[in-house]
Amino acid sequence: MSTRTILKGGVVVSTDGQARSDVLIEDDTIIALGTDLDGDGHVVDVTGCQILPGLVDSHTHLEMPTMGTVTADDFASGTIAAAVGGTTTVIDFAMQTDGSLLTGLETWKANARDKAHIDYGFHMAVTDASESAIKEMADMVDEGVTSFKVFMAFKGSFMADDQQLLRVLRRTGETGGLVQVHAENGDAIDLNISDALSRGQTAPGMHATTRPESTEQEATGRAIHLATWAKRPVFVVHVSAASAVREIQEARMNGLPVFGETCVHYLTLTEDELHRPGFDGAKYVCSPPLRHEHDQDVLWSALRQQDLQIVTTDHCPFNFCGQKELGRDDFSKIPNGLPTIEHRLPLLHEHGVRTGRMTMSELVNLTSTAPAKMFGLDRKGRIAPGYDADLVVFDPSATLEISAANHHMAVDYTPFESWTCHGAPTMVYSRGDLVYGDGEVRSTPGRGRFVRRSTGPFPAGDITRI
Amino acid sequence: MSTRTILKGGVVVSTDGQARSDVLIEDDTIIALGTDLDGDGHVVDVTGCQILPGLVDSHTHLEMPTMGTVTADDFASGTIAAAVGGTTTVIDFAMQTDGSLLTGLETWKANARDKAHIDYGFHMAVTDASESAIKEMADMVDEGVTSFKVFMAFKGSFMADDQQLLRVLRRTGETGGLVQVHAENGDAIDLNISDALSRGQTAPGMHATTRPESTEQEATGRAIHLATWAKRPVFVVHVSAASAVREIQEARMNGLPVFGETCVHYLTLTEDELHRPGFDGAKYVCSPPLRHEHDQDVLWSALRQQDLQIVTTDHCPFNFCGQKELGRDDFSKIPNGLPTIEHRLPLLHEHGVRTGRMTMSELVNLTSTAPAKMFGLDRKGRIAPGYDADLVVFDPSATLEISAANHHMAVDYTPFESWTCHGAPTMVYSRGDLVYGDGEVRSTPGRGRFVRRSTGPFPAGDITRI
Amino acid sequence: MSTRTILKGGVVVSTDGQARSDVLIEDDTIIALGTDLDGDGHVVDVTGCQILPGLVDSHTHLEMPTMGTVTADDFASGTIAAAVGGTTTVIDFAMQTDGSLLTGLETWKANARDKAHIDYGFHMAVTDASESAIKEMADMVDEGVTSFKVFMAFKGSFMADDQQLLRVLRRTGETGGLVQVHAENGDAIDLNISDALSRGQTAPGMHATTRPESTEQEATGRAIHLATWAKRPVFVVHVSAASAVREIQEARMNGLPVFGETCVHYLTLTEDELHRPGFDGAKYVCSPPLRHEHDQDVLWSALRQQDLQIVTTDHCPFNFCGQKELGRDDFSKIPNGLPTIEHRLPLLHEHGVRTGRMTMSELVNLTSTAPAKMFGLDRKGRIAPGYDADLVVFDPSATLEISAANHHMAVDYTPFESWTCHGAPTMVYSRGDLVYGDGEVRSTPGRGRFVRRSTGPFPAGDITRI
Amino acid sequence: MSTRTILKGGVVVSTDGQARSDVLIEDDTIIALGTDLDGDGHVVDVTGCQILPGLVDSHTHLEMPTMGTVTADDFASGTIAAAVGGTTTVIDFAMQTDGSLLTGLETWKANARDKAHIDYGFHMAVTDASESAIKEMADMVDEGVTSFKVFMAFKGSFMADDQQLLRVLRRTGETGGLVQVHAENGDAIDLNISDALSRGQTAPGMHATTRPESTEQEATGRAIHLATWAKRPVFVVHVSAASAVREIQEARMNGLPVFGETCVHYLTLTEDELHRPGFDGAKYVCSPPLRHEHDQDVLWSALRQQDLQIVTTDHCPFNFCGQKELGRDDFSKIPNGLPTIEHRLPLLHEHGVRTGRMTMSELVNLTSTAPAKMFGLDRKGRIAPGYDADLVVFDPSATLEISAANHHMAVDYTPFESWTCHGAPTMVYSRGDLVYGDGEVRSTPGRGRFVRRSTGPFPAGDITRI
Repeated sequence: MSTRTILKGGVVVSTDGQARSDVLIEDDTIIALGTDLDGDGHVVDVTGCQILPGLVDSHTHLEMPTMGTVTADDFASGTIAAAVGGTTTVIDFAMQTDGSLLTGLETWKANARDKAHIDYGFHMAVTDASESAIKEMADMVDEGVTSFKVFMAFKGSFMADDQQLLRVLRRTGETGGLVQVHAENGDAIDLNISDALSRGQTAPGMHATTRPESTEQEATGRAIHLATWAKRPVFVVHVSAASAVREIQEARMNGLPVFGETCVHYLTLTEDELHRPGFDGAKYVCSPPLRHEHDQDVLWSALRQQDLQIVTTDHCPFNFCGQKELGRDDFSKIPNGLPTIEHRLPLLHEHGVRTGRMTMSELVNLTSTAPAKMFGLDRKGRIAPGYDADLVVFDPSATLEISAANHHMAVDYTPFESWTCHGAPTMVYSRGDLVYGDGEVRSTPGRGRFVRRSTGPFPAGDITRI
Repeated sequence: MSTRTILKGGVVVSTDGQARSDVLIEDDTIIALGTDLDGDGHVVDVTGCQILPGLVDSHTHLEMPTMGTVTADDFASGTIAAAVGGTTTVIDFAMQTDGSLLTGLETWKANARDKAHIDYGFHMAVTDASESAIKEMADMVDEGVTSFKVFMAFKGSFMADDQQLLRVLRRTGETGGLVQVHAENGDAIDLNISDALSRGQTAPGMHATTRPESTEQEATGRAIHLATWAKRPVFVVHVSAASAVREIQEARMNGLPVFGETCVHYLTLTEDELHRPGFDGAKYVCSPPLRHEHDQDVLWSALRQQDLQIVTTDHCPFNFCGQKELGRDDFSKIPNGLPTIEHRLPLLHEHGVRTGRMTMSELVNLTSTAPAKMFGLDRKGRIAPGYDADLVVFDPSATLEISAANHHMAVDYTPFESWTCHGAPTMVYSRGDLVYGDGEVRSTPGRGRFVRRSTGPFPAGDITRI
Repeated sequence: MSTRTILKGGVVVSTDGQARSDVLIEDDTIIALGTDLDGDGHVVDVTGCQILPGLVDSHTHLEMPTMGTVTADDFASGTIAAAVGGTTTVIDFAMQTDGSLLTGLETWKANARDKAHIDYGFHMAVTDASESAIKEMADMVDEGVTSFKVFMAFKGSFMADDQQLLRVLRRTGETGGLVQVHAENGDAIDLNISDALSRGQTAPGMHATTRPESTEQEATGRAIHLATWAKRPVFVVHVSAASAVREIQEARMNGLPVFGETCVHYLTLTEDELHRPGFDGAKYVCSPPLRHEHDQDVLWSALRQQDLQIVTTDHCPFNFCGQKELGRDDFSKIPNGLPTIEHRLPLLHEHGVRTGRMTMSELVNLTSTAPAKMFGLDRKGRIAPGYDADLVVFDPSATLEISAANHHMAVDYTPFESWTCHGAPTMVYSRGDLVYGDGEVRSTPGRGRFVRRSTGPFPAGDITRI
Repeated sequence: MSTRTILKGGVVVSTDGQARSDVLIEDDTIIALGTDLDGDGHVVDVTGCQILPGLVDSHTHLEMPTMGTVTADDFASGTIAAAVGGTTTVIDFAMQTDGSLLTGLETWKANARDKAHIDYGFHMAVTDASESAIKEMADMVDEGVTSFKVFMAFKGSFMADDQQLLRVLRRTGETGGLVQVHAENGDAIDLNISDALSRGQTAPGMHATTRPESTEQEATGRAIHLATWAKRPVFVVHVSAASAVREIQEARMNGLPVFGETCVHYLTLTEDELHRPGFDGAKYVCSPPLRHEHDQDVLWSALRQQDLQIVTTDHCPFNFCGQKELGRDDFSKIPNGLPTIEHRLPLLHEHGVRTGRMTMSELVNLTSTAPAKMFGLDRKGRIAPGYDADLVVFDPSATLEISAANHHMAVDYTPFESWTCHGAPTMVYSRGDLVYGDGEVRSTPGRGRFVRRSTGPFPAGDITRI
């Protein structure tokens, strides 16, 4: 027998506007929207609230081994923190393991299976574009892993050269799917780092100094060239620099299928944080590094124009104690990444919607509808009959004080400590289940399911225009 | 007692996707969408069809006196042709009359009142930016006429100089609302025309020759400067040239609030038509003139990227016999304009959707959702509870052969004679009334209502970014 | 019998380098250069000095009636001040007078004839592009007046509309010659001024506020469009704004024959001067207004790249007492212009050569060789056998303290009061005559001759590339 | 006792104009120019001819081992062919040998010493930027080898990665000097080649297909980024693609110290030649490959604007028989290069000067004055007292029919077979010696001397603007 729930009295926000509307859920699916829906079912009064499609976070790193340690959130803590923040689907980066993509996928699936509270998919990071790895890309697409990440930075570890990136891009012409690039010039950065260390410059601030914005711009432009040669789209992850945005905009103006995301921290924090006294700047070390106010203006503007289509978190959490501290004497040993999975929605609402930089409809698009479409999550990202009942009840009158003391991430600090957000999720549904409500987590580990993704707008074959 | 209608079995198309969904109408309003809606009401089976929000045509010229004649469609023939083509709202250009905007508005309202089959609003063309006209702009906004058109071409008649355009732009900073520009350099064109005539070059093809694309580019760029100085948005009507698109894109890349439309004929016809043997080219004379294949590519691309937001018709119909013929001996006397109000939807579907240049969701946005938002039609442009029940049932398997012999416009030719479109509207609802169905017009003149528009995204005050 | 002079021991500077070389003059002509020239003749020891070709100032306004007064220097004081500063040829702006170009030319010739100390030519300003004036342009070219200026600013007085500018440009396609434009958007500026005055803002600083740099940028871009339509080159006078430079650079990058000058004051002074306390800012009022440090950087850079080809003075002197003071209560009544004819060379040497922003060869090109070529002065601008013996002996070890107390201009102030320049002309030859030497003027009024100019690189016909 | 020669009756061409002038040579040096020079000395009548400074060819490959063979001209045949064509100085590319720059220099010096007919300098190609090679760069500068070439193409042989290029660039900040880059993306090209071969596409035309112009554009843009990071100038050799020119122009517009050359074959030949029937296309294989007419237009335009400063030959000759034939079954084995050292001057005169694309002064600058300045040849490139008496007597009425049958290069074909040039050098002087005259070579092997070059405009330290 089916279960029915009616969210009554709310305002449904979609990408093209908002309207007072009840939402009727049957089991795990949305089946109706209406001005005044009647009938059986559990009625939940959401008067005064907005109802959003559950957010999709298409850039997370849970339980990822890197730089001699492992990210602090596993799929349990990470996904529950996501859910509390209104995110109902994550797409995590599985990493090529022992040279194999399949091994990587199995590893990450095993990590997630019994822990995830919400639905999850995987991108696959190709860190060694060997012939066998290139072959395995077809298996990935068969498994519903339809996007592949290549690093243009981290010389000596993850970094691919242009030829390897080209091979991966071309392969998606055969398999379908989308290539994502981490766009920084690893050659230059590596030289900058060794120079800095040889001069005894070891403080966290050097992380930014050694990765100037033009290293991101150059790699972004190069990635666009490579994708154009391969006749395939390319997606630039974590765009942070104004000049990199400009590369993307020029490409799009010329009709090229170039896409990109920025992350919530690039919109809200600046390089200044890296220069905090002592070692505190380490809390803000991520790659690309935090930039400047001017870059933020350009990022907000690019989001409004949809030249960047998505805002993610690039959640990559490390404890300050014991993890960030690995780089106390050498900034290049500080694990790169920030814990942000829980606060994307309230931060974007506070600093985007409330300041007039975006509408609530734009927020929904950037964090839910657009990533669902871009990455082939065919039942996610919209509030419409037939879609998964992934829903966020957002109360604009609620107040959230961000703090490591109350957050759900398994990490000992937050870069937004003591920041106040007006507006917060109060109830979160995942496939019809209330997973967060009344301030309580109401989910169980393992209820989240692996989502096979389609190739969405990026089937096999030549793709040469937006 | 209220009337209920249920459209059953269709696929609802909105800007963010499509889904199988019934639509429930009560009186003139949409009240629910659902997978399987029951209840009382007249059930209409639309299985196999798509349901679109009624299209908005924000650029029409009905009963407009110009160049010594009057456009061939009045509000009766024009609006029924619109409805047959899936358009349920027009925004027509009222013209400043006897120096007064109010007089212009009254005249156009009188023209429409007893004839219109569908809802209509008005833009106001300011052709003499006198002090009194500038003052009247506030009255216009009060009356729900929240957009103002200024001509940068037609020296000696409609053309405003830069200072006049600036005054109109600035005034919207006080009144709210949006300025639209016809962007062509009238000084250069006027000189080109007199030169051509003095050389005895009188054929229709000279219409294009004397209005090269850079005259549109220059004026577009200048309009953007003027709007920037006035700290107001600007909307460029009927963009036709690739280079003008580029001006708009550069401005938007810099974050400026610059918007624009193109028209269905610029996407489907080229300048070649103007050079047809004899006087036949006159049928294709409009301003800006038809351009080239390259321009079409750029226009399609700009629509995909939303650098142009709207596709309209600029419907401005003249009979070939008796009207276009006024210019038999002098191309500059050919009335400017094409009859296109009826065929926008099937043509965009055929040449946009079926060729892969746009999705059906993008079509809906460009022709309905976006113009409704841009021009403050707050109950139009979406299929959502609470919105006007303006709906189009679109049958992708229907076939339409365009011909003057069967069209509903009161004009003796069509530029698309014998073109075939696969897919056509089969039922059209205006505020819950079936106005077109089973190939029959089912409406009565005068049922359409004047719609007061809000200032939408463009209230009074400085507006300096998208 | 001929007179011979040998300048011995100096370093001859030309555009492609410098070399120790004696220079032999016979009568009014250079006849040899050599490592160690012997023979008859008066030997002048110039050891330790550089020998430059006499400078050309292609932008001066002597005895020009404007804004209810007349520029303070006539052809006597103006040309001797020029000579003292190393300038041996001026091209002054004759103005269309009583509707006629010929009348204008006769007037200016009469002004100069008995007063000029050095050679002079004329440009003709076309302020009313009537049919008869357009016709007279051929007479001008016959008379050796081969360049024509059109104003895009000063609405209500000098300003031409686009059609008039187009007519002048096209006419040079028949007559040969070059059109110069004053590029500022007069419509916008005029509105800005009346707004400012209506708000009671009357101080000199408003002169800059009402002419923002984008008004120059827009007009520059528009002039380039108009010239392109006319298939003729265009020369932009007194470029001051970085954004206007960019318009010129983009055009040149596309191969268009677009040229321009900047003036010494735009390189050395900023808008800050206009905001001096009291009415002192009036001393710095010129159009376009002084800009900012960023603009200066771009101007210097454009000169190095030859995207701007010439540095002139736009010498347009008014006394502070009695002339500038006309605008005490209304900034728009302050006569526009600065007294600069005397100090271009030492200022460029001090702020260009000595700071490393240009080489002495580049200085020679920008102030002598390039203007001579651009404006058809076929015997000027080079030190080579057969050229006029217009020579400047420049002593890099001399020191000049600029002051109204010692300058030769008939004006009661200098914008560079108390500025020190290291390096100054010590001897100046005009056609073999020493006109300035040992700190003394050694010339007589009327010795200067009218120079008929050729059309140089700009003959009649279409010219569509650099 | 000194020897004197007077060239009488000619027209001396320099970069800033031309003038009738005699030239007096004493021993190896120019000592005077004059309208009518008298005195002792051998008088040579050059009436009707132009006198140019001897041309500098700053890009040649003589006796260079590459791709399993050696270029066909040694320093004897190569330099005499140069001289016959009006070139009096070559700068040849010495290659790092056995890992050492010094060894490379010694090898090339030994090659040249007893064979060269004209003066020669060397650039040093750094093909393995090891620590020791980086160190040796200082020795090179001490030896007068002040420019260093790095290859971004030829993966697996010459190609450097970004970090190596960066190291070389940075090192010039310590040593002074200029880095030259061969800008093509070797990673992409290498993949293209192996793909083509794996598909059995082996014909010469594939050489162009596998090196599309955007591979040159991308590498050019990247080189500019790297140079900017190193705060050093960069010189792009053999620019062939319009899009690469645009990268350079954008950089220069932003004031960056970016320079470049094109070669005579890119101005005169197109890719069509590569697709000749049979294996004949091999004669036209060079890298970058020949491009299209559009690219030629842009190259000519960039030369006029001085966005490219130099025209060289990239003379890299291989016999068709026995050498080009190495690639009969595999286009990637065709030695890359064309024999062009002899015909640069007459070809540029024919296709540049006579078509109006450049003036004779511009030709002199691009082929003599500019390369002498750019590469620190302090006594070359000008006709002025004190400079080396390297002179070309150019007869515009002479006719040259280019043919392998009459040329002086030791190679069995010419890409310009049967082309006719109007205008040719008739006498060529190297340091006062007539080395070519009356159609006869009058030189002896070994008379040419090694020229130590200064760092010219590029001393050590940061250089961040043009």
